[in-house]
Amino acid sequence: MESKHQDEIVQLCPRYHRAIELIGRRWTGAVIRVLFAGPRRFNEILARIPGISDRLLTERLRELEQAEIVSRAVETGSPVRVTYGLTAMGRDLEGPLGEIGRWAERWLPAEATAL
Amino acid sequence: MESKHQDEIVQLCPRYHRAIELIGRRWTGAVIRVLFAGPRRFNEILARIPGISDRLLTERLRELEQAEIVSRAVETGSPVRVTYGLTAMGRDLEGPLGEIGRWAERWLPAEATAL
Repeated sequence: MESKHQDEIVQLCPRYHRAIELIGRRWTGAVIRVLFAGPRRFNEILARIPGISDRLLTERLRELEQAEIVSRAVETGSPVRVTYGLTAMGRDLEGPLGEIGRWAERWLPAEATAL
Repeated sequence: MESKHQDEIVQLCPRYHRAIELIGRRWTGAVIRVLFAGPRRFNEILARIPGISDRLLTERLRELEQAEIVSRAVETGSPVRVTYGLTAMGRDLEGPLGEIGRWAERWLPAEATAL
């Protein structure tokens, strides 16, 4: 990158950058928050997040699985029971996401931000 | 929303939801992080975030101004000097964003997440 300020460039940590955009993807924060309570089936997650579509929940869960934040468990039986739960990495987001929630309570007006 | 689990629906805080998606928008976390060091001119911010375009930085700064996280200061003179700085609300993100950074350092492999 060409710039007269090149010597002052702050090296932004790519991990920070990636983390913040992963967590901030539409509905991702909501999905993780639902799973803090424990593993849930697809339809249970869907019911807990007003406004999300089947397609988007599928997509977000797949991304979270790839990022190793969520893991999918299949219990054999009839019918087969599939649940989604947080990995240790996912559960460790409770601190950061809790901080964001408290920031939101301090600063965002409740009425102006309804979905 | 129709669901047999309706009685169990967790009311997700809309402020939390909005906060997390605001912060997680592409480049927004990086812009805020640059401004933790103090007010900066447009080109200074641009130079500190490898990969962002003029157009996207303009868009993100406008969104952050609307959200009252960033404020724009115009110093008259020749040439006019315009700087962008964090409001009190913006500075208060240092805690939450620091938590996310520490989570990223704990869990994301450095090499696999390069930009």
